[in-house]
Amino acid sequence: MSYQIAVLAGDGIGPEVMAEARKVLSAVEARFALEMEYAEFDVGGIAIDKHGCPLPAATLQGCAAADAILFGSVGGPKWEKLPPNEQPERGALLPLRGHFELFCNLRPAKLHSGLEHMSPLRSDISARGFDVLCVRELTGGIYFGKPKGRQGEGEDEEAFDTMRYSRREIARIARIAFEAARGRRKKVTSVDKANVLACSVLWRQVVEEVARDFPDVELEHIYIDNATMQLLRRPHEFDVMLCSNLFGDILSDEIAMLTGSMGLLASASMNAGGFGLFEPAGGSAPDIAGKGIANPVAQILSAALMLRHSLKQEAAAAAIERAVGKALADGYLTGELLSAEHRADAKTTTQMGDYIAKAI
Amino acid sequence: MSYQIAVLAGDGIGPEVMAEARKVLSAVEARFALEMEYAEFDVGGIAIDKHGCPLPAATLQGCAAADAILFGSVGGPKWEKLPPNEQPERGALLPLRGHFELFCNLRPAKLHSGLEHMSPLRSDISARGFDVLCVRELTGGIYFGKPKGRQGEGEDEEAFDTMRYSRREIARIARIAFEAARGRRKKVTSVDKANVLACSVLWRQVVEEVARDFPDVELEHIYIDNATMQLLRRPHEFDVMLCSNLFGDILSDEIAMLTGSMGLLASASMNAGGFGLFEPAGGSAPDIAGKGIANPVAQILSAALMLRHSLKQEAAAAAIERAVGKALADGYLTGELLSAEHRADAKTTTQMGDYIAKAI
Ligand SMILES: CC(C)[C@H](C(=O)O)[C@@H](O)C(=O)O
Ligand SMILES: CC(C)[C@H](C(=O)O)[C@@H](O)C(=O)O
Repeated sequence: MSYQIAVLAGDGIGPEVMAEARKVLSAVEARFALEMEYAEFDVGGIAIDKHGCPLPAATLQGCAAADAILFGSVGGPKWEKLPPNEQPERGALLPLRGHFELFCNLRPAKLHSGLEHMSPLRSDISARGFDVLCVRELTGGIYFGKPKGRQGEGEDEEAFDTMRYSRREIARIARIAFEAARGRRKKVTSVDKANVLACSVLWRQVVEEVARDFPDVELEHIYIDNATMQLLRRPHEFDVMLCSNLFGDILSDEIAMLTGSMGLLASASMNAGGFGLFEPAGGSAPDIAGKGIANPVAQILSAALMLRHSLKQEAAAAAIERAVGKALADGYLTGELLSAEHRADAKTTTQMGDYIAKAI
Repeated sequence: MSYQIAVLAGDGIGPEVMAEARKVLSAVEARFALEMEYAEFDVGGIAIDKHGCPLPAATLQGCAAADAILFGSVGGPKWEKLPPNEQPERGALLPLRGHFELFCNLRPAKLHSGLEHMSPLRSDISARGFDVLCVRELTGGIYFGKPKGRQGEGEDEEAFDTMRYSRREIARIARIAFEAARGRRKKVTSVDKANVLACSVLWRQVVEEVARDFPDVELEHIYIDNATMQLLRRPHEFDVMLCSNLFGDILSDEIAMLTGSMGLLASASMNAGGFGLFEPAGGSAPDIAGKGIANPVAQILSAALMLRHSLKQEAAAAAIERAVGKALADGYLTGELLSAEHRADAKTTTQMGDYIAKAI
């Protein structure tokens, strides 16, 4: 099989961790007789600098011609003073999601055994571990709802945004959450604010309707404010969390932080045809860029998600995940995952990539 | 001075903790020569049972005739199957906020020294303590914005909510946050999602304009998703957090849970005239209602906030807070704040009230 991959490494640590993902992908290609072609495109801050906008037409075209997008990370202090709408993160990610209708965002977050001390949670809570999959709707809700804008003048000037969800939009993301739960611990927690939002009342109704097709999966509803709290006390009780766009943004970040190891988390954003964008959960980390110390695991696991979801190469995806699991189990870690007294054992970005590629 | 207080004890533990707050208020009346008259009204589930709706007209009239509302808590399993709009919490709190234009919600949350073990945070993080005041806008944004509803049919049926903020609404709540910061650690963190929401872009602008009148207060902006994360890592770095209605709902609950002692947290909801509703942050806790073990401190501190903000009796408010501080410092605690091996020392609801009243 032969595949075209659009590689958008971006800013900060993006290029250096992407190099390690490519290394691991090469190992996988060799072992599973895959043929992958890579085309690199500018995105984010570097695209602003070189072409004047965070998502140049050539990049969008390159993505359209590919089977999947492997995304690094974008943003940095250099572009922080731009108006929010023109900044690298917003200016690149939202149009990509909208253009390719990447409505389905999967954000798995697991507290790896042996890394419990990384979690900001109290030791008796983190000792129980947790493994949550956040399924976030990514092209609807208040992110894209119209009308959105400003009107009026002086003190009366007002801004407005519209949160909007159709039955169709809710049903398709709910279905994905239930299907995912079947392959996991068979529980879906649907997050809403049905005591305040009309969208949430419809959300709850449609989720219940979809649930009838999955009698083997347990469904519970929780308000977003309560979800934020319960995740702190008993994260191990959650399996799949089904969220609208805004609530998923907030909750997936909370869960990611609860693992304490953002450098290990990858995410997938897909459309109905299986085309997708795969990226690390962490940011571009400009403070450590170029130092060779960034953790490439999230980027490597993004490549695994790409193989699984867009390229349907489950065996290759699983091989990458096993290789990463081996590295972590062997205590082969970058510095941010080590306590001060073990910091001397820290592996570099390149060493991590080499080790994982070799384990394939 | 003589004051009229509307007492809305509500459901669950509401009536029993309210009795202790009344006891403490009596002690304060005697010591500070205040004259308080109390009128009790039904609210929440008990009002549904007795009058068919969670906020009967008589209750609303009673509140309108008073100088302040002392609120207990509402809700319980009995009313959970009602449509969200008719449930006790939503059906009582939102109309009260809307009717009296209680736009300013203050939710202080502090990790008390000696109670660090209650926090779900890792011990090295909780050891640093924290003291955050969440200033939440309470009558605008997506809670009350119009249009809100449903349209269309079949798969295309959609629901919509409108987030809406005017310069006036933003400026008046921002001003309160900056004024509060002046009496604290002089830092305001304004929470928004300016990379996605038009409302947040205006919010940020207006907050910066208001900030010019407070050159002695530091201002920083943070995205809601990032705020959710940073509170887990470094809560001690936040002082006043300024939030819109929805973001404040989410963030104030996260912060409350980070203290691990919801039974100690009170909140104030006020209008421009200083009239307000004062209530504990925790819920009606139906599981422990009637057992005499509920912590009355949050209700007692709600009375202190009422004295300070609506009745302008700072000395009396401070006396209550000092008395509560003494009880906690003396290790005089209800069971939920004690570890298993000290549970035998737990004080009852009544004992707590007596002790605090005596310390006035
Ligand atoms: C950059 C921003 C627009 C984006 C979002 O809010 O979706 C980011 O926070 C994310 O979660 O991918
Ligand atoms: C009951 C509900 C409508 C309310 C809110 O969302 O404001 C509650 O969660 C709160 O924070 O006081």
